Amino acid sequence: MKANININKIKSSYIIIAGCGRLGANLANTLSNLGESVIVIDRDEDAFRKLSHSFGGIVVAGDATEMTVLNDAEIEKATAVISVTNNDNTNIMVAQLAKEMFNIDQVIARLYDPECECVYQEFGIETICPAVLSMKEIDKMLPAIPLGVLDGEGLAV
Amino acid sequence: MKANININKIKSSYIIIAGCGRLGANLANTLSNLGESVIVIDRDEDAFRKLSHSFGGIVVAGDATEMTVLNDAEIEKATAVISVTNNDNTNIMVAQLAKEMFNIDQVIARLYDPECECVYQEFGIETICPAVLSMKEIDKMLPAIPLGVLDGEGLAV
Repeated sequence: MKANININKIKSSYIIIAGCGRLGANLANTLSNLGESVIVIDRDEDAFRKLSHSFGGIVVAGDATEMTVLNDAEIEKATAVISVTNNDNTNIMVAQLAKEMFNIDQVIARLYDPECECVYQEFGIETICPAVLSMKEIDKMLPAIPLGVLDGEGLAV
Repeated sequence: MKANININKIKSSYIIIAGCGRLGANLANTLSNLGESVIVIDRDEDAFRKLSHSFGGIVVAGDATEMTVLNDAEIEKATAVISVTNNDNTNIMVAQLAKEMFNIDQVIARLYDPECECVYQEFGIETICPAVLSMKEIDKMLPAIPLGVLDGEGLAV
């Protein structure tokens, strides 16, 4: 199941976002407002309700780990793939497909489990881990108690 | 239901963490490793399994929004209260109780919904929002497309 895709309608340069949760929708709205071409993929069509009325990109209802879905979205033409579904394994799989099968230059994956983070960075996949980012932010807020995570170290996972 | 509390055992200065999820447990472990006295409150006793073997703080199984639980933990002596349960309303309630009822100097709440963030900052409650932090991080990773969130602005919620 997928929405109408007319890839020719959009510019040659575009960004694919897998996962239309709070972060994915926010990213999609922000990038679209900036005039970027965006394709958002989510298995759940209801998720697209989070997109703003001014969102000018394309939505694809489907599983971003499936090659047919990625091929339909002409992933090979994407300048960046950002995988922010609520499932770490999905994000890892999308990121690896984008990087290794389609040679996408910039690939970003959200990983809830901080232990995975280092591994994927070695594969050229940039990762964001909300727990690590939150720890760093709390570290800044508690200047009297340096948690030692501001440099990425010291996380007691 | 609560674990044994012997508040006299710990130092006069300590930090209360509400919510022993990934972030709460990580914070508790890190602070404990640094020699800080920590009290962790969670409704679910199983959550305390995330604490490391070296965790030297106190755990309280109970609802951190209940005054009896906060009184048992002698919250008024805490130097900081950090509420990072997986429920925004709980975190807001704990933070407001800590700030207004017990005059705790440093109060930090995690809020998943970025729209709440500004309101509570006005009450002297510091907030961390994983979606905002993630957007800022992605902003750094996409230098060619400034999302405008690095200064806290531009989030298209």
